[in-house]
Amino acid sequence: MLRFLTLMLGLTLATSPVHAFEQVTDFQLDNGMQVVVIEDHRAPVVMNMVWYRAGSADEQPGVSGVAHFLEHLLFKGTDTLESGEFSATVAANGGRDNAFTSYDYTAYFQRVAADRLELMMKMEADRMVNLRLDEADILTERDVIIEERNQRTENSPGALMREQMDGVQYLNHRYGVPIIGWRHEMEQLSLQDALDYYTTYYAPNNAVLVVAGDVYPDDVRALAETYFGVLPPNPDLEPRDRPQEPPQTTPRRLVFEDARVAQPYVTRSYLAPERNPGDQSTAAALTILAELLGGGTTSFLNERLQFDQKLAVYTGAFYRGTSLDTTSFNVTVVPIQGVSLQEAEDAMDQALADFMASEIDEAHVERIKMQLRASQIYARDSVESLANRYGRALTTSLTIADVQEWPDVLQAVTIEDIRAAGELVFNERQSVTGWLTSPTSEEGSQ
Amino acid sequence: MLRFLTLMLGLTLATSPVHAFEQVTDFQLDNGMQVVVIEDHRAPVVMNMVWYRAGSADEQPGVSGVAHFLEHLLFKGTDTLESGEFSATVAANGGRDNAFTSYDYTAYFQRVAADRLELMMKMEADRMVNLRLDEADILTERDVIIEERNQRTENSPGALMREQMDGVQYLNHRYGVPIIGWRHEMEQLSLQDALDYYTTYYAPNNAVLVVAGDVYPDDVRALAETYFGVLPPNPDLEPRDRPQEPPQTTPRRLVFEDARVAQPYVTRSYLAPERNPGDQSTAAALTILAELLGGGTTSFLNERLQFDQKLAVYTGAFYRGTSLDTTSFNVTVVPIQGVSLQEAEDAMDQALADFMASEIDEAHVERIKMQLRASQIYARDSVESLANRYGRALTTSLTIADVQEWPDVLQAVTIEDIRAAGELVFNERQSVTGWLTSPTSEEGSQ
Repeated sequence: MLRFLTLMLGLTLATSPVHAFEQVTDFQLDNGMQVVVIEDHRAPVVMNMVWYRAGSADEQPGVSGVAHFLEHLLFKGTDTLESGEFSATVAANGGRDNAFTSYDYTAYFQRVAADRLELMMKMEADRMVNLRLDEADILTERDVIIEERNQRTENSPGALMREQMDGVQYLNHRYGVPIIGWRHEMEQLSLQDALDYYTTYYAPNNAVLVVAGDVYPDDVRALAETYFGVLPPNPDLEPRDRPQEPPQTTPRRLVFEDARVAQPYVTRSYLAPERNPGDQSTAAALTILAELLGGGTTSFLNERLQFDQKLAVYTGAFYRGTSLDTTSFNVTVVPIQGVSLQEAEDAMDQALADFMASEIDEAHVERIKMQLRASQIYARDSVESLANRYGRALTTSLTIADVQEWPDVLQAVTIEDIRAAGELVFNERQSVTGWLTSPTSEEGSQ
Repeated sequence: MLRFLTLMLGLTLATSPVHAFEQVTDFQLDNGMQVVVIEDHRAPVVMNMVWYRAGSADEQPGVSGVAHFLEHLLFKGTDTLESGEFSATVAANGGRDNAFTSYDYTAYFQRVAADRLELMMKMEADRMVNLRLDEADILTERDVIIEERNQRTENSPGALMREQMDGVQYLNHRYGVPIIGWRHEMEQLSLQDALDYYTTYYAPNNAVLVVAGDVYPDDVRALAETYFGVLPPNPDLEPRDRPQEPPQTTPRRLVFEDARVAQPYVTRSYLAPERNPGDQSTAAALTILAELLGGGTTSFLNERLQFDQKLAVYTGAFYRGTSLDTTSFNVTVVPIQGVSLQEAEDAMDQALADFMASEIDEAHVERIKMQLRASQIYARDSVESLANRYGRALTTSLTIADVQEWPDVLQAVTIEDIRAAGELVFNERQSVTGWLTSPTSEEGSQ
């Protein structure tokens, strides 16, 4: 039944016009703030997002976690709002709000009734420049982020291994430092560290306002000019060229052993190019390559290692192309009980080699393109997802045009592009291979 | 004959007073500059050294190599000296001069007739604050340091592997970045980068003057006050707390393949504690451990892997305790032809395990202590070596007292201390293992 539905959908989608873009308007305020309006008038709600072109990879050395720490602190007081009043006001207006931090950006959002947009903008503009923090805020919120680290990282052997792998993948770039921060540095984060980051990066000329929903561009422009347009730009904002990787010349391997590991696995990460403005075709080919190899039950790795050889319980390939600097391509194999990590890795390597040595299945590629097209069309149904897509792109050096061309770039990928992308990325010299295992498993102390 | 001589010397040295220190006087100028005078009146020469508490690990991200670049640029002009005139003046006065950069310090020195000391100090004080650089200096000298990188690093597979290993050993600390710099960053080093480093770190309150030779403290003090004492301290000098490592939880491995490798080898580095002020005993035990394991022909690894098992042409263990932050302990085995790197590594691991499991040879420890005592006494014969010892120590947080206690701390090391140090440092989770190999060797593409 499900298969039938997918086929039907495929037929419909294949005939959809590729250029049925979302209704997007963009402009820039005089102070350099970029504004994107995504119209969707089906429901009287709006998503108000402020994205800063600053994430954990923009931190100074020694203060890892400060980008995320500051994200928490933005919910403290300003000159006119008490600590906690921001979110309380959103809730009192029937909305919800939150924020998130990544390597390349920090974003704040509220989803509210469209007629409350002005209040949201007013409060966002306020905390962009008027944040007032004291030592008590620091002490309280530092405990919160450390507890967050406990939950997300310390309690997860896989997350702990990923941290060590990232540190080994990146010899120079700050993508090698965790977004949440190294614990020993988090524990020392000070009021001054938070304020330094705030005054360096929080300014209208380093921000993108994304408003999506039941709004009209002229109204958004008027509100944006009223609230954000009056804020002074930071004249000292530096170009965003962060330290880049040296040539990576050496395959690296690590074994992460943790008594809590119930399910050992092997994972490999390769350095990989990211989406670049006007130059997205390699990233598109890698996106499809990841799907071919490890995207779901009909993927090459799945068919080979789970169905044919029956030595894996899970296989996956993952590529995240929306990144300001060099990103990574990941392949993971979780072996069934009784299959060693060495056997799993050998099988993974053989599968990758065989994939590259054989004809790429054209029908499979077409199926993936169809799925990508479908997911893009579905995504248009969600203003949140659209707003996130534009926000991520515009804070990782891409343009509106890049976002809108991306579906076509994906559709234009050829078999040859995929092969070339594979040859580029499957370079063991730029790779890290990790084994997650427990001391009692046979791979324990090698 | 040689063995006999060593024994005789040993007997003599064993009865030498341990506290026969070199004649050292130290004081501080009002502007915070530390001065150390080491007297040696046997020859009318003097070593004049200025040490800055700033090395490559004090650089900002993205400008690797700038510490060393600036070292080169200090031989350009000042307000009163033409470019090149510094060294020409030293040579014209019958002296020689040079400089060197490490992770934790940069040092400049002249060895001249004692009656020329004043001129040397005058010129050193001049270039501490009056450096005048232009774009032409940058372009010329940048080519020189890039060529230096070619010679020292790019032409040496071992050096290239060491760079990648250091990057993998240090997940957060800047010891993971090469002193000479990453080539892609060196190529972009600008006049502003050099000046930023200069104005941040080159100031009397961040420097140590070490004068060794045929001089008297009162005369040195008078000269130092005249030339260095008048320089303003940098009031913005920050405490030197650089980003430290997070817990290292994962053994890491890498294979460096290079067609130029004629002699493959395996090398392991373990994170290891450094000498700390008033707390040097672990570093002392590690110093002796390195000698026991890999110091010369009678070392444990040498006897085991070269003489007994005949599978290595070289073994070595190396530990450098004089470091501001966490350092490393290294073990290397170069197998004979026909022995694979895996066999060499297995033999190395077995040897380390056996060493730790067996009684440590007390007589061997005593022999090493004797040799260390001897080398310390010999070192007193060289003002250069003494000046370097004090300079290195004082720029890596140690004190004069630490330097002078170090020989006694070494002599006080017990068998139990060595075992405890071994247990501390041989922690595979904090280790990186590297294989240097060529594509044609059997280890080639694993």
